Amino acid sequence: MKANIVLIGSGNVATHLGKRLIDVGHQVLQVYSPQLSNARTLATALSSDGISSLDTLLPEADFYIIAVSDHAILQVIHDLQSRASGIWLHTSGSTDIKVFEGLSDKFGVLYPLQTFSKQKDVDFTTIPLAIEANNDQTYRQVEKLAQTISGKSFYGSSKQRLALHVSAVFACNFTNYMYAVAENILQENDLGFDMIKPLILETAEKALHFSPKTVQTGPAIRRDTMILEKHIKFLQESPLYSELYSDISRLIMNCGPDEESQPKC
Amino acid sequence: MKANIVLIGSGNVATHLGKRLIDVGHQVLQVYSPQLSNARTLATALSSDGISSLDTLLPEADFYIIAVSDHAILQVIHDLQSRASGIWLHTSGSTDIKVFEGLSDKFGVLYPLQTFSKQKDVDFTTIPLAIEANNDQTYRQVEKLAQTISGKSFYGSSKQRLALHVSAVFACNFTNYMYAVAENILQENDLGFDMIKPLILETAEKALHFSPKTVQTGPAIRRDTMILEKHIKFLQESPLYSELYSDISRLIMNCGPDEESQPKC
Repeated sequence: MKANIVLIGSGNVATHLGKRLIDVGHQVLQVYSPQLSNARTLATALSSDGISSLDTLLPEADFYIIAVSDHAILQVIHDLQSRASGIWLHTSGSTDIKVFEGLSDKFGVLYPLQTFSKQKDVDFTTIPLAIEANNDQTYRQVEKLAQTISGKSFYGSSKQRLALHVSAVFACNFTNYMYAVAENILQENDLGFDMIKPLILETAEKALHFSPKTVQTGPAIRRDTMILEKHIKFLQESPLYSELYSDISRLIMNCGPDEESQPKC
Repeated sequence: MKANIVLIGSGNVATHLGKRLIDVGHQVLQVYSPQLSNARTLATALSSDGISSLDTLLPEADFYIIAVSDHAILQVIHDLQSRASGIWLHTSGSTDIKVFEGLSDKFGVLYPLQTFSKQKDVDFTTIPLAIEANNDQTYRQVEKLAQTISGKSFYGSSKQRLALHVSAVFACNFTNYMYAVAENILQENDLGFDMIKPLILETAEKALHFSPKTVQTGPAIRRDTMILEKHIKFLQESPLYSELYSDISRLIMNCGPDEESQPKC
């Protein structure tokens, strides 16, 4: 399947997704962004045309992929109305498919569960893609497109997609913040962040093979209050960190086998 | 350098460290644990003798490595007094070297910055080992031993070692807890934990190449209050999770360039 696509947006998701679409043989006809320079930068990379006015939008692409920040989606959809006859897709984790209702008769969602940074390429073949559509016929089209992008597309309802996004915030954004706290503590003690990298990698790799609940380690799960107190005292000059340390430790201390002998966190 | 070692303890650190000591050619003369069965299990794996009474402790090993839980260290050191003439080492991140003072004249610390689980082997060659000793002569002996175990040994004061341990709690234990929360949210929504594994690995790999402070992503760093509110509402049936989500998001929202244009978290 080779599709003609109009890409709306020029941020991290639009950039990485756009490159992947080209790599697997689709054509990106146009890149739209309200900032013409942003549209053109991405369009150049995709051998496409950059536009900053929807008046010049091509009306008959197969897909219009809306990869813009969540609060801009609704406005974009309103602007697309009566200008675009293909399937409209957004790429947001936390925006219900209902956002399209009454404005289009062919629409859906294509949500890649991954973190995208300008600095780093990602391997799309392993990225889960949650898809959804307004009816079976559209779903089949979206599924075909998704399968060209990743080997891991699946149906996810709007509620499941929201659950995926919230989970991703914990497993990715909050985890990265934990790394950043570690980085700061190390720096304040004349130690390099490099030192903790083997531990970061080991912790992530362990999660690939074991249920995290079952391999929790550290002073909190051992209920080692002597160490917890030492650490909180050590952090006393950074009240935000010592409070965070106490709060998460308290949550971990609550973990433990419940009535069904399942670890509970 | 080939050393004769007595290993005190039979938990995760003693087990992984003991295996590494054997692998690089040292001899573990004895494994001590108050539970004879535990001592014997590890001793068998190390071609060593398991003992549960310090009365049978060999008095002239080169090193007595105390790999027991932190609150047991002081008692062990008292029990070793006048029974052991070699260098005494503990392996704790959060126990000051002063714990040995007045009880021995050759002592130090060998702290491996890694998480050890019974289920998983680790590669010792990349594990940072923070070492410390009571004088230069002992330090050189501890350093020689450390260099046989890992390519990454370095001097770390007791305060730096505590900083390493606290950092490790954030980067490993708290990170694993974030994974566990994600796992629970996914399960509650009929989604597999597998889905989030590429994201977990990508987040860890990104930290190997970039300063975490500079690559923070997600709704909180974007100050996307619309998404934050949706997520907190989604979590409302798990008050502990929604509170944790709010607290960490608030901390991330405080991140940003300070006066010196350094990201600050």
